[in-house]
Amino acid sequence: MNVRASRLLPCLSWLRHYDRQAAGKDLTAALIVTLMLIPQSLAYALLAGLPPVSGLYASILPLLAYTLFGTSRTLAVGPVAVVSLMTATAIAPWYPVGSAEYIGAALLLAALSGAFLLLMALLRLGFLASFLSHPVISGFISASALLIALGQLKHLLGVSLQSDNAPALLAELVTALPQAHAPTLAIGGTTLLFLFLARTRAGRLLQALGLRAGLAATLTRIAPVFALLVAIAVVTLLDLDERGVKVVGAIPQGLPTFTLPPLDLQLAEALLPAAVLISLIGFVESVSVAQTLAAKRRERIEPNQELIALGSANFAAALSGGFPVTGGFARSVVNFDAGAQTPLAGALTAIGIGIAVLFFTPLFRNLPHAVLAATIIVAVLSLVDLTALKRTWQYSRQDASAMIATMLGVLVIGVEVGIVLGVGLSLLLFLWRTSQPHMAVVGLLPGTEHFRNVERFPVRQSPTVLSLRVDESLYFPNARYLEDRVAALIEARPGTRHLVLMCPGVNLIDASALESLEAIAQRLHAAGVQLHLSEVKGPVMDRLRQAPFLHHFGGQVFISQYEALKALDPAFITSVHTATGERTAGIAQRGVNDAHSS
Amino acid sequence: MNVRASRLLPCLSWLRHYDRQAAGKDLTAALIVTLMLIPQSLAYALLAGLPPVSGLYASILPLLAYTLFGTSRTLAVGPVAVVSLMTATAIAPWYPVGSAEYIGAALLLAALSGAFLLLMALLRLGFLASFLSHPVISGFISASALLIALGQLKHLLGVSLQSDNAPALLAELVTALPQAHAPTLAIGGTTLLFLFLARTRAGRLLQALGLRAGLAATLTRIAPVFALLVAIAVVTLLDLDERGVKVVGAIPQGLPTFTLPPLDLQLAEALLPAAVLISLIGFVESVSVAQTLAAKRRERIEPNQELIALGSANFAAALSGGFPVTGGFARSVVNFDAGAQTPLAGALTAIGIGIAVLFFTPLFRNLPHAVLAATIIVAVLSLVDLTALKRTWQYSRQDASAMIATMLGVLVIGVEVGIVLGVGLSLLLFLWRTSQPHMAVVGLLPGTEHFRNVERFPVRQSPTVLSLRVDESLYFPNARYLEDRVAALIEARPGTRHLVLMCPGVNLIDASALESLEAIAQRLHAAGVQLHLSEVKGPVMDRLRQAPFLHHFGGQVFISQYEALKALDPAFITSVHTATGERTAGIAQRGVNDAHSS
Repeated sequence: MNVRASRLLPCLSWLRHYDRQAAGKDLTAALIVTLMLIPQSLAYALLAGLPPVSGLYASILPLLAYTLFGTSRTLAVGPVAVVSLMTATAIAPWYPVGSAEYIGAALLLAALSGAFLLLMALLRLGFLASFLSHPVISGFISASALLIALGQLKHLLGVSLQSDNAPALLAELVTALPQAHAPTLAIGGTTLLFLFLARTRAGRLLQALGLRAGLAATLTRIAPVFALLVAIAVVTLLDLDERGVKVVGAIPQGLPTFTLPPLDLQLAEALLPAAVLISLIGFVESVSVAQTLAAKRRERIEPNQELIALGSANFAAALSGGFPVTGGFARSVVNFDAGAQTPLAGALTAIGIGIAVLFFTPLFRNLPHAVLAATIIVAVLSLVDLTALKRTWQYSRQDASAMIATMLGVLVIGVEVGIVLGVGLSLLLFLWRTSQPHMAVVGLLPGTEHFRNVERFPVRQSPTVLSLRVDESLYFPNARYLEDRVAALIEARPGTRHLVLMCPGVNLIDASALESLEAIAQRLHAAGVQLHLSEVKGPVMDRLRQAPFLHHFGGQVFISQYEALKALDPAFITSVHTATGERTAGIAQRGVNDAHSS
Repeated sequence: MNVRASRLLPCLSWLRHYDRQAAGKDLTAALIVTLMLIPQSLAYALLAGLPPVSGLYASILPLLAYTLFGTSRTLAVGPVAVVSLMTATAIAPWYPVGSAEYIGAALLLAALSGAFLLLMALLRLGFLASFLSHPVISGFISASALLIALGQLKHLLGVSLQSDNAPALLAELVTALPQAHAPTLAIGGTTLLFLFLARTRAGRLLQALGLRAGLAATLTRIAPVFALLVAIAVVTLLDLDERGVKVVGAIPQGLPTFTLPPLDLQLAEALLPAAVLISLIGFVESVSVAQTLAAKRRERIEPNQELIALGSANFAAALSGGFPVTGGFARSVVNFDAGAQTPLAGALTAIGIGIAVLFFTPLFRNLPHAVLAATIIVAVLSLVDLTALKRTWQYSRQDASAMIATMLGVLVIGVEVGIVLGVGLSLLLFLWRTSQPHMAVVGLLPGTEHFRNVERFPVRQSPTVLSLRVDESLYFPNARYLEDRVAALIEARPGTRHLVLMCPGVNLIDASALESLEAIAQRLHAAGVQLHLSEVKGPVMDRLRQAPFLHHFGGQVFISQYEALKALDPAFITSVHTATGERTAGIAQRGVNDAHSS
């Protein structure tokens, strides 16, 4: 088989070994995921400000695209909560919710997101996702989930709210509380309670009633479908839709037709930042869950190929009346637990949703918004992880501050501002950290050939040779700090004749740092001090040999700090040895216990 | 003396030891710098789009402010070419050159720049300057200098040009060439030639005529003043101003009066990005020359105090009819060479300019623009360093590409776009580099306790224990790479039961990396592999102890990789030793030659 083809189309390799047993497992998993996906896809379309059927459309073709191109065997692609919120946030300022332009903009957003993902794959820009640090992502997800839950409360209460930030939403909710629509609240509240109990208690209850653990878990997973059906029955029987309970209404029947996003360059430019953020967040979340699940079966996913697969899925969404999609956490776990063996489970799910959209949409006519809102609230509240904030705070105040900035930004200003704030702050903090790397003046530990931090160990220093150990790669964020530090040290030690930079922790010297080294060498020279290097790593040395620096800086590159001192101040070495008289013993002891020094 | 006071006012410490000898040297230096500064300050005001007298004003109070607060004994503060260009670029889109609003905007820009510098000092944000890598700064200075020189050619030709980017300027120049104004071109061309010869040949010529080297050098430095005086005489005698040679015109006589920048918030918001860039570029350039000069006398400057001094100088400029200032390279070198002993030389220069503005401004009435343009061209062309591009290219293509992006941005689009492009690209490249840190699978070097890269050394590996050495701190840009790498390794080696991450090069583990380690440990666990760490540095270990990770990841932290293998696969250690039988000898040899391994 052609290796290139099977790299681009991973399905070629697993299809070869496909058998009846795998098909059976995939089919079971697909059935469960379909039942879980129906209410979720309707609900997330609502969250995105789109007609419910868009959620079903976004759960057909995109899943088939992922089956063709994806490397994860269990990732369940489709509409997800956070991306749906981001979709609404991106389009709402442009068009009224529900308008044809709004729906078109959602297609365009999916197409842009698909294009950006494919561009990242093509240019190998997957590393851009590293901009999103864990605390920023975690804070973003938690805050978005809270914001989504808050926003859904209006459907539960049957009131209408305008705000899009948490404090204003809260204030509006409090004032709107007396106007709550009782029948809506009754249905929504009951559903919410039921879904919470299903999630937390039902598993054990069903097992107590004699069901197998696996079946009990499956039943709790598809609890939303029961809720949906019961609610539809209640609304229909009691004619609640005519008594003010908002329902989904008529959903068109039939498979999605071919759609083209509007070719509006101005709109495309305006939506681009949102598309980039949606792509990055979607990619990071998707890869993270896919990796976790793959590892459990000692399989592996290929992040660059995932970009292609998610990009294609979004293009498929744009061409079939959907909106941006990505790999969902909860559904993927269910898919995995239900025993999905190959991405074909995804294709079977797509067929399941296809059957639903072909035959069952009339059933959803009387589905109340409040029930969908309850589904969303229960789904997203499981994404809120406030203990992560506490853990991060304990580990690192700096990382926690980036997390808090993200959360506050999302809750108070908006999802995009929040993530930009968080990324900006973590970059700043990162640069600040790297801009002041750990450096230590070191001295000889008597009786050994070791050089250790003078502030931590009883070491001896040469009066004329200053030994400075650099514990970080040298690049532009810290190049000037090195200059400042050396200048301060030399001014404080007028007797210095040689400065040896000890570089065992230096993995890179970039052009900025090289310039700084040149400047340091020159300035030291002017002050009557010679610069030397020691313990330079192989690849760093290879690079340095390409620059004129080594030829004209006037100093030497020593293989070790000890060799440097032997050459530059032999009298000092002799005096230390005479004082301790333990040289030979010292050498034999060296080594293992270097590890925990600093 | 109060230490705090002398830290904030460094002049308190040097004034105590001030004596007649220092005063004499300072006076000589101040005289030479004054003569050099007069034409430059007039010319740079012209370049900034301001009336010539603004240049003189910007050379009085700001210099006194720096004398009070500065830590460099020889830095010469005042208008400089690149900052003047940036001033013009920032204000030109807002007001017509020469209008009162334009002059007010220049005051506001100086005030904003002063405020930002003081803010940086207060919040210890000096590290922000590290965003500007050496290649970006160098490319920016060279390209700006080229752009300035190109822009001045119109004054030399006596034509008017509209463009503000290099390609358009060149095109305009070619078409405008036939309209060149002959008398202007004659004066400008002659001055240019004279100044070039003065800079390149005059020193040796004067020495050949019997002058002392020092005096000869000084004379060449103040050659622009001669040129100025001769040109004024020629214009006056031949009435050239009436024959179309553009002259400076009447310059108001008298010291600057107190000015207040306009309190226009909208304008302030628009000028802020330019003010930030001007502050950063000015600070970096100023500190770099100050450090170089200080080192020659084994003195030291204090970067944070320099922020205060430059901030005050810019405030002083805003309050006295000036425009943004910073430490100039050429003038500082002249000041140093002329023997300036203390910052008082700067104050004396300010007095010199004060005398000029009080008594000599009528003299400059007939000074031709063409002569000032020639002064600028000669001054800025010495800033163009194209060999830096070649050197950087040879050392690192990546750094060179950031430099090229900056240069092209400046020349083709604009100074601000150029620097933003360069900084953005160097940040991206930096993240890209750190996002793929060097990691090596290592094995035991027979006969030693060393673990080395399996791709470079004839080492032996345990079939069940995988040793992976990480040569970089672990933080968010590379946390996910580690996850991918580990996943790939484990998939490729199904026999693995333990993975030991060897961390001698890890100086930091941030919250993101900690999450990744948790994820890795969990995924490995699911795949039946246990994660361990070895050779973790002291400060990293201290931090890790604050996190629950160490308690629940299930593995151990070994003091060395060798200890790890002894514990996890003792049979492997025995088999290697049996095969080589050199264990004891090996231990004694270890150590020094670790340096160049990788």
